[in-house]
Amino acid sequence: MSKMYNVAILGATGAVGQQMIDTLDRLEFPISELKLLSSSRSAGKKIMFKGQELTVEEAKPESFEGVDLALFSAGGSISKELAPEAVERGATVVDNTSAFRMDKDIPLVVPEVNADALKEHNGIIANPNCSTIQMVAAMEPVRKAFGLKRVIVSTYQAVSGAGNAAVDEMYEQSQQIMNDEPINPQILPVGGDKKHYQIAFNAVPQIDKFQDNGYTFEEMKMINETKKIMSDDSIQVAATCVRLPVETGHSESVYVEVEKDGLDVAGFKKLMEEAPGVTLQDDPSNQIYPLATDAKGKDDVFVGRIRQDLDHPKGFHFWVVADNLLKGAALNSVQIAQSLVEQNLLKK
Amino acid sequence: MSKMYNVAILGATGAVGQQMIDTLDRLEFPISELKLLSSSRSAGKKIMFKGQELTVEEAKPESFEGVDLALFSAGGSISKELAPEAVERGATVVDNTSAFRMDKDIPLVVPEVNADALKEHNGIIANPNCSTIQMVAAMEPVRKAFGLKRVIVSTYQAVSGAGNAAVDEMYEQSQQIMNDEPINPQILPVGGDKKHYQIAFNAVPQIDKFQDNGYTFEEMKMINETKKIMSDDSIQVAATCVRLPVETGHSESVYVEVEKDGLDVAGFKKLMEEAPGVTLQDDPSNQIYPLATDAKGKDDVFVGRIRQDLDHPKGFHFWVVADNLLKGAALNSVQIAQSLVEQNLLKK
Repeated sequence: MSKMYNVAILGATGAVGQQMIDTLDRLEFPISELKLLSSSRSAGKKIMFKGQELTVEEAKPESFEGVDLALFSAGGSISKELAPEAVERGATVVDNTSAFRMDKDIPLVVPEVNADALKEHNGIIANPNCSTIQMVAAMEPVRKAFGLKRVIVSTYQAVSGAGNAAVDEMYEQSQQIMNDEPINPQILPVGGDKKHYQIAFNAVPQIDKFQDNGYTFEEMKMINETKKIMSDDSIQVAATCVRLPVETGHSESVYVEVEKDGLDVAGFKKLMEEAPGVTLQDDPSNQIYPLATDAKGKDDVFVGRIRQDLDHPKGFHFWVVADNLLKGAALNSVQIAQSLVEQNLLKK
Repeated sequence: MSKMYNVAILGATGAVGQQMIDTLDRLEFPISELKLLSSSRSAGKKIMFKGQELTVEEAKPESFEGVDLALFSAGGSISKELAPEAVERGATVVDNTSAFRMDKDIPLVVPEVNADALKEHNGIIANPNCSTIQMVAAMEPVRKAFGLKRVIVSTYQAVSGAGNAAVDEMYEQSQQIMNDEPINPQILPVGGDKKHYQIAFNAVPQIDKFQDNGYTFEEMKMINETKKIMSDDSIQVAATCVRLPVETGHSESVYVEVEKDGLDVAGFKKLMEEAPGVTLQDDPSNQIYPLATDAKGKDDVFVGRIRQDLDHPKGFHFWVVADNLLKGAALNSVQIAQSLVEQNLLKK
């Protein structure tokens, strides 16, 4: 290993931030110094990294002096404020919020799909939305070989995507319901929205706030980000995003229609077997298919239940599951950082 | 009220049977005598009906002597064996299993959609699959006014559809997981299949066994039954069926493509408002949409999240929720019985 880098994690105490720390360690990212940053509220907390106790510091513009790579996951408004400051001080920022994702000058990257887009970066790279990443990772080999005309996805999303407090709410509520005690939803489906609903033993068709067109922001993220990552605005994408009482592991029921003839289920499976970062789990006769509980803690995107549409020979249905904190967030961010290093694209 | 009927319920101690007893009472079905039947295992149990204690009897061919109307919900093989016996003895059978649903000579009925089909019955009427009923009830007004070309549905199904023991398994497992105790799945996803998986805090893409084509029987039920109920084999239907840790209340993410021009979201909502047995719950700005926990114990089918597809002007997405034990099973069976009475179609 040649060069080592000074790395900062902003949002280090959050659900994703914790996974970023673990993932940097696990993937042996060449770190000379790790700086953990957060809001003032979480500053002062102690976190272990490679046998060393690190103290979380409050993030300020000056925090990024001397930082080569900064992984951001502390909310969109904080990214908007501090990412330019970090870039100005020489850092390259991989941002896991929605702040810059649709910005024309900022690459939105899933390394298996569009690592080349990193070449165009101006200091900030956006990490896509969790539910988008796993879907495009699975679809890319199909798109490459047969073209992609249309996508219709319905999601089954885990509560850890809404943060640690949402996970606590789900378990606390589950216990209260089983004890026949009253519940008091405070966070889900959307922390910042007006009303809160029971998530335990329920399925809530709202993730993020509603737009004027009746779609939620989460649904629009899947629609817009897919087109941007695949560099093709003509792909027709529709999404319905639903929150479930699952701790970690987003599942998705996806319908794709390809452009070219010649794809069948066997061919689709072969593409999945050969795809980087994808594991095929598809053997109905032995009840083998991806499950959120199996995907938790794993790096790959798991694909199964591949079926040809009964009326449309170019239409296929499949089920894709991934750990939303890993491939959906922390892992993809670290993989972007690795690709920046490999391509020699870090600002310094 | 003029005529009164001798009614039998087969499967009286099951999740659906219990709802049948309640629903007959609540809807004031004109009963002169109610006979509760079950397997030998459950015979002898006592159940209250209109202040009277009834003893559950073991179902035998002779049990149906003098019975006018028999509601069956005790499994397909029992229906196949006993429904012809009941018919031979003069009863009209409403069967809530999959035994006869695709039989050409047996009507498959959701009264709001095809009550007329009851006229063709020869003693047995099939009650459709729970996940099909709520979807066709919501789609029928759209089909009638604008035609229906294509349907793609992903389901979010409750465990009570798999019976009372599955509900117990879900709660017991949830508690074990929260206590950090080992779990031992025995029933879900499919009681009669080889492997059993964790349902608590998970999403399992298997309901009923797999067919050779990679679809589950549940998925093929939705596909085939929709065409039969709507009397149109040309409607293209695709389904992905998923079991969730929800006690009661199936949710569905549905995409429909209509034949004719001129439908918009406002028009779709108006159709839902005017549809029999349907309640519109659709106000994104106030976070109003159907939820399984709200639908439980209610008779109606709840529809919301209606959106026009962003690429296909004739394509619409919506979210439909209903109590799978009521409209999905017991209520629809009793409504079929009511329609038989109204149309004077009971065998006697």
